[in-house]
Amino acid sequence: MKTAIYPGSFDPVTFGHIDLISRASTMCDKLIVAVLNNSSKTPLFSVDERVNMLKEVTKDLPNVEVTSFSGLLIDFADSVGASVIFRGLRSVSDFEYEVYWAQTNHVLRPHLDTVFLATSVDLSFVSSSAVRELSSHKGDVSAFVPAVIEKQIREKLNY
Amino acid sequence: MKTAIYPGSFDPVTFGHIDLISRASTMCDKLIVAVLNNSSKTPLFSVDERVNMLKEVTKDLPNVEVTSFSGLLIDFADSVGASVIFRGLRSVSDFEYEVYWAQTNHVLRPHLDTVFLATSVDLSFVSSSAVRELSSHKGDVSAFVPAVIEKQIREKLNY
Amino acid sequence: MKTAIYPGSFDPVTFGHIDLISRASTMCDKLIVAVLNNSSKTPLFSVDERVNMLKEVTKDLPNVEVTSFSGLLIDFADSVGASVIFRGLRSVSDFEYEVYWAQTNHVLRPHLDTVFLATSVDLSFVSSSAVRELSSHKGDVSAFVPAVIEKQIREKLNY
Amino acid sequence: MKTAIYPGSFDPVTFGHIDLISRASTMCDKLIVAVLNNSSKTPLFSVDERVNMLKEVTKDLPNVEVTSFSGLLIDFADSVGASVIFRGLRSVSDFEYEVYWAQTNHVLRPHLDTVFLATSVDLSFVSSSAVRELSSHKGDVSAFVPAVIEKQIREKLNY
Amino acid sequence: MKTAIYPGSFDPVTFGHIDLISRASTMCDKLIVAVLNNSSKTPLFSVDERVNMLKEVTKDLPNVEVTSFSGLLIDFADSVGASVIFRGLRSVSDFEYEVYWAQTNHVLRPHLDTVFLATSVDLSFVSSSAVRELSSHKGDVSAFVPAVIEKQIREKLNY
Amino acid sequence: MKTAIYPGSFDPVTFGHIDLISRASTMCDKLIVAVLNNSSKTPLFSVDERVNMLKEVTKDLPNVEVTSFSGLLIDFADSVGASVIFRGLRSVSDFEYEVYWAQTNHVLRPHLDTVFLATSVDLSFVSSSAVRELSSHKGDVSAFVPAVIEKQIREKLNY
Repeated sequence: MKTAIYPGSFDPVTFGHIDLISRASTMCDKLIVAVLNNSSKTPLFSVDERVNMLKEVTKDLPNVEVTSFSGLLIDFADSVGASVIFRGLRSVSDFEYEVYWAQTNHVLRPHLDTVFLATSVDLSFVSSSAVRELSSHKGDVSAFVPAVIEKQIREKLNY
Repeated sequence: MKTAIYPGSFDPVTFGHIDLISRASTMCDKLIVAVLNNSSKTPLFSVDERVNMLKEVTKDLPNVEVTSFSGLLIDFADSVGASVIFRGLRSVSDFEYEVYWAQTNHVLRPHLDTVFLATSVDLSFVSSSAVRELSSHKGDVSAFVPAVIEKQIREKLNY
Repeated sequence: MKTAIYPGSFDPVTFGHIDLISRASTMCDKLIVAVLNNSSKTPLFSVDERVNMLKEVTKDLPNVEVTSFSGLLIDFADSVGASVIFRGLRSVSDFEYEVYWAQTNHVLRPHLDTVFLATSVDLSFVSSSAVRELSSHKGDVSAFVPAVIEKQIREKLNY
Repeated sequence: MKTAIYPGSFDPVTFGHIDLISRASTMCDKLIVAVLNNSSKTPLFSVDERVNMLKEVTKDLPNVEVTSFSGLLIDFADSVGASVIFRGLRSVSDFEYEVYWAQTNHVLRPHLDTVFLATSVDLSFVSSSAVRELSSHKGDVSAFVPAVIEKQIREKLNY
Repeated sequence: MKTAIYPGSFDPVTFGHIDLISRASTMCDKLIVAVLNNSSKTPLFSVDERVNMLKEVTKDLPNVEVTSFSGLLIDFADSVGASVIFRGLRSVSDFEYEVYWAQTNHVLRPHLDTVFLATSVDLSFVSSSAVRELSSHKGDVSAFVPAVIEKQIREKLNY
Repeated sequence: MKTAIYPGSFDPVTFGHIDLISRASTMCDKLIVAVLNNSSKTPLFSVDERVNMLKEVTKDLPNVEVTSFSGLLIDFADSVGASVIFRGLRSVSDFEYEVYWAQTNHVLRPHLDTVFLATSVDLSFVSSSAVRELSSHKGDVSAFVPAVIEKQIREKLNY
């Protein structure tokens, strides 16, 4: 597997994302972690902040690059010469949405394939949306994100 | 990705399996297609017949090997030095069973990971169990398996 | 909708089946209720007993016929000139299995289509397997089947 | 089956909708394709544009009418004398939502029933939301909609 | 079971909620029905109106209290000394969301547990969202809510 | 909550069962753990062996009793005066089967209710069927069962 992409919102990056990046990076020559710039949502952190957070937590993984993209994932994959997309799977709802887009993208770009990794058992309660929910009420998120990310969440939300 | 395994029953091999083998083989150095020798089931074809069928339909893929195994998948993976297991996903029922065993195997062998590929859209009606059901009533299975496999099914079931 | 089939095991027929037959029969010219003769299962009632039970409970529906069949459903549909198959849907597990075969049968016979009806709310706890489980322990099944069927269950199981 | 309705958003109409209209129209005397005027969403095409698109792609089906409606589906069904509602089913998420409303509508209007058709296999990647997502980034949607609809999408979005 | 909470939106309270409150109240010494004050949604009824409706329909259950809360459910549970959270389950989509938060809350507060009750069969078509949808079009909601609540809905929406 | 039952196969008891027993026992006056004597299955351990294993691992929980039963769960519940049944939930497949029987049992015995607890996150890979599968191939099951149970499994299967 030459070049692979792991796209997502990463708002913010969690232990779950870091686990998946670590596992996926052993399966390819280069892994590009790509923050989707989705203008229709109001994120907690800006795209630049999320890219910097990801760079910080992946700095010891030499074949991981971090960047951002807008537009269609299949066009971004073409532009960086990637042949594989990594996605995590936790729930049945995830599964149906993800398989739908994996199949649709494979119809549109037959040379591009999506591979799925299941969430590790001990991280299956970890999600960015839980971090956002908990932190919006000044809750403890140390079980969900590294200390360096928790610090930035607390600064952003003043607690 | 160095060495990967694609385990299954392959009773018989279908266009769906061949599609997955073809896609998975581009993602690793060596792909070992491994027929599970499950003594508690009564198969249509013997393990040896299934291994030979798989060799026939994968003969043009140079980095694919075919073999069989008994016992635990994690022990077989250790014995051939594989670090990745490929599995196909079609339905939600598949998903829950497969994710359960991917997570359990990862707890038992942290160096071993499972990656999932979604069935291609135009093959999503193809399954070995449909082939067995249709052929048991002398039905047409040409949409499900290559001609060389269909011939062996018809010989086995006398039609 | 000219001629339609409603296939099933009907072991035994329940209020749920009767509700579906009644609703489906208003949507077609002729509805053939067809008991599958599946030799690989050990039923509570024989195929003939099930056909007779169905005739008894549908005797007031003039456009409903009851029969049995062996082999593939698509071949039976061809033999009676049916263009539509009716199936009930209750659970997600039902759904995946049923949609799989609806799609596969439509690939094999493009002129044959499957339509699904959802179980009525107040009958959603009714199933043949619950009747078999309850009656095997001499339980009360009057909420699940008409009195005429309950009588035959009690005779068969001596309670 | 006398008069049936196929309600939806159709924003825009896809090959999947056209397949379902074509199959449903063979099962009833008259099929009314009804665009829901849902003021709480911002559509890509206006209700009138969607009605005209549907008229264009169904012009060869003599027993199909196209119209729009506001308010409750059960009230619209009463107003046109329909006894059956057609709905397509693709995913488990669809299934639960659709069965919920089929059951609720049947409680509210016992004379009104909902029948479900499964998406055809080779169109299972087709959805209006994918068309909107792809076209918003000037992507190729020719696998999802007829040429006459693609033309209107490109005009609307200037590409 | 000493003190338990049943949190929710209750916009408005339905026969389904009342059934669950009645069943849960027999399992604990005190049941606190707690209306979530969620500022990010636009409700049909204000938090105070919903608290008053709940007090009205639970007035004959002596060990039931009604209140409202903002912020995290786990913090509210701590503040009232509750050890158990009750939640209703109807669909698979419910199930995945609810189990996710039950597990996450149990990680964050090991002394706090969530127990689930299945919707009663004959109320499985009842939901607050259906009430809001139907009443927004001046539909009949008498199968979903008690007369005293229906009266307030009709007053609020002028029909 | 006076007397509750936790029924199951417990073949063998796992850390998952022990976690559920421990959590459920805090919610009721008396918890009866009841091994189902299901003559249609060939178990790894006899009913008596399973009862003794459960007594061993619950000996420090004063309000927990262990017994076995045959026949219908609702009849057993009546015979011991229980008003609540506890069941664990892990997967969507579990959920549908369990909710079906909870609803059916509630129709048959309105005074009897079923409450569900979600599997704890860190035990979600633990199941009796995995223990049976692993131990049948002399695999390590120490992550699934207490040492005292593992010893009996190894003795039973000679490894």
